[in-house]
Amino acid sequence: MKRIYLDNNATTPLTPEIFEYYISLTQTIYGNPSSVHHEGRDAKACLVEARKRVAHCLDVLPTEVFFFPSATEALNTALYSVLKKNPKGHVVTTNVEHVAVFEVLESESRLRPVTFIAVGETGAPTPKDIEEAIREDTCLVTCMSVNNETGVITDIEAIGAICARKGIPFIVDAVAHLGKAPLHIPKGVSCLVISGHKIHVPKGCAAVVSKAPFKLSSLLLGGHQEWSKRPGTENVPAYATFAKGLEIFKTHEDDSIHHLQSLRDRFEKALLSHIPGLLVNGSGERVSNVSNLSFPDLDAETFLMQLDMQGIAASHGSACSSGSLEPSRILTNMGYPRKRVLSAIRFSFGRQNTLEEVDEAVLKIVQILKTQR
Amino acid sequence: MKRIYLDNNATTPLTPEIFEYYISLTQTIYGNPSSVHHEGRDAKACLVEARKRVAHCLDVLPTEVFFFPSATEALNTALYSVLKKNPKGHVVTTNVEHVAVFEVLESESRLRPVTFIAVGETGAPTPKDIEEAIREDTCLVTCMSVNNETGVITDIEAIGAICARKGIPFIVDAVAHLGKAPLHIPKGVSCLVISGHKIHVPKGCAAVVSKAPFKLSSLLLGGHQEWSKRPGTENVPAYATFAKGLEIFKTHEDDSIHHLQSLRDRFEKALLSHIPGLLVNGSGERVSNVSNLSFPDLDAETFLMQLDMQGIAASHGSACSSGSLEPSRILTNMGYPRKRVLSAIRFSFGRQNTLEEVDEAVLKIVQILKTQR
Repeated sequence: MKRIYLDNNATTPLTPEIFEYYISLTQTIYGNPSSVHHEGRDAKACLVEARKRVAHCLDVLPTEVFFFPSATEALNTALYSVLKKNPKGHVVTTNVEHVAVFEVLESESRLRPVTFIAVGETGAPTPKDIEEAIREDTCLVTCMSVNNETGVITDIEAIGAICARKGIPFIVDAVAHLGKAPLHIPKGVSCLVISGHKIHVPKGCAAVVSKAPFKLSSLLLGGHQEWSKRPGTENVPAYATFAKGLEIFKTHEDDSIHHLQSLRDRFEKALLSHIPGLLVNGSGERVSNVSNLSFPDLDAETFLMQLDMQGIAASHGSACSSGSLEPSRILTNMGYPRKRVLSAIRFSFGRQNTLEEVDEAVLKIVQILKTQR
Repeated sequence: MKRIYLDNNATTPLTPEIFEYYISLTQTIYGNPSSVHHEGRDAKACLVEARKRVAHCLDVLPTEVFFFPSATEALNTALYSVLKKNPKGHVVTTNVEHVAVFEVLESESRLRPVTFIAVGETGAPTPKDIEEAIREDTCLVTCMSVNNETGVITDIEAIGAICARKGIPFIVDAVAHLGKAPLHIPKGVSCLVISGHKIHVPKGCAAVVSKAPFKLSSLLLGGHQEWSKRPGTENVPAYATFAKGLEIFKTHEDDSIHHLQSLRDRFEKALLSHIPGLLVNGSGERVSNVSNLSFPDLDAETFLMQLDMQGIAASHGSACSSGSLEPSRILTNMGYPRKRVLSAIRFSFGRQNTLEEVDEAVLKIVQILKTQR
């Protein structure tokens, strides 16, 4: 059975173009960029070029881009860069952050004041929420620009303006944003994290954009790679492929986003017209590729298995938390009733998906629901 | 000009067999192992299998193997697992450790007693050195099983026995050991770190073997991957390819080591016979693939450039430190005179090297030296 992969917020398959690029680099660029010989210099040049290309795509300076092997490490590093310097400072965040931010701040909340803003059913904090939560002793504001479970967008431009005015560092998790909506890094954002494997690039690469006066501090000790912000031999083929993935997205940005939005809107519209009582989770403005839906009187776990047997891959929340089979922490914290949370499924579209797949998925979903009744 | 790559301790090219395996996985296994659908379960199965295969090669339990994206992170994680629990405990290590261990312990030495054993010209600590350094308050012994710059072997079996008897955790950096000599994990070794990119496997994978009662503690906070020891989406294709690389080595272990040793011995013997005054650095027993040589009256930096122009890649020490153009910390700490350190070059052989390459390299080296005189 042909599979329809609608879990692109968990991770993505490589596109053929990116795959070809990656394997050619894996064959040819094997030197250690710290080595001074030909093979090392080739790797170094590729790394320098990758950094420039990422910087160009994000409209920042190459010296503001730091490569990491994972977004979790990148986010932890960014957060602890502030937290370790301000052991008692107050932190403002939300109750819908990814586990790589949430676990750090939950742990910190035992040692310092942390405000977890309750975002409610919109799914994102408002600039006013953030401003009101800021105190005299606030040392950090952090939130995601796009929620990975609902796709809801946070107004990081307005929040950045507040943080800039008050002189507070603002760290943004843009992992679910990249490739799904135009990404401009507004004034006031001190530090922003993106990840490769969510945009059809191999696993093992992420980047931190760090803007002065923000100072990234390495969590690890060792060599002086990445200007001493991330010791260890750089995975140059993966990092350069990340740059390639960003460039491809940038070149076709409008088309790419339009394609994702067509898929998602067609899917959602069809299901809403076929399934009475179907609810869209997250009432705020959303990026192009996510449809988080609660199916009336349905157990999401069972339904996901049925979908899977019919060839459709979807999820009931973040993959990083989904092993637990717990109801989504995000939807729960948004204040939805337990029944709605337990019947919620996230469909997330990717560049490789087609309108035909959408139609087939809709058909199968409606059929499964019919059989159940 | 055909290149002769003799810097395999910095990093290695993929062998054709490993490359083929890796690219096939990169195409087919793209799911997130935390996802419960077909694509996720495929990735999970591949990961579980990879762990079993690594465990089998190292003769440990699958539950004792933890994958990491880099050896630096793996070593840091292992060390801090003990250090954070024992904030004042004394640490025993040597003065020739890799920077990923050295930097951690140098930083700790500002907060607690750390004994850096002076290994001398043999290049490795003796079990007696370790035993004598251990105190009442020693909470950790750590050293490498093979030095990355000299190839000198440490007797981790005897040191393991001492640590087991005294009940002290013993962390071993086996990065320069793997693939160069048989690797048995002896009694008393609590935790051991290996890296993929030194054995012709893609960058981005390392593993920690952690034996009870040793408890690995994650440095990062986030998802519950790797039994909560390393949060973040697992790079399954790379980890499975690491398993493949280990299996290939294990299957051909004797041949592989014999091949490396033939290359190194032929190279060293030829140079010693041609170059009066040539000195081998590290008088202790060495693994098969490293030849660290001091050339009389020669500046290593200049000579490395000349070698490079003649198509030969070598280095003057660890790649992780080589950007600095500082004289090797390892050779300096071994007590060699500055002149000997500044004229030292590390040649490290890999599985792809041939006897013909060795002969050509010897010829070119001798020629360069002749031209200079």
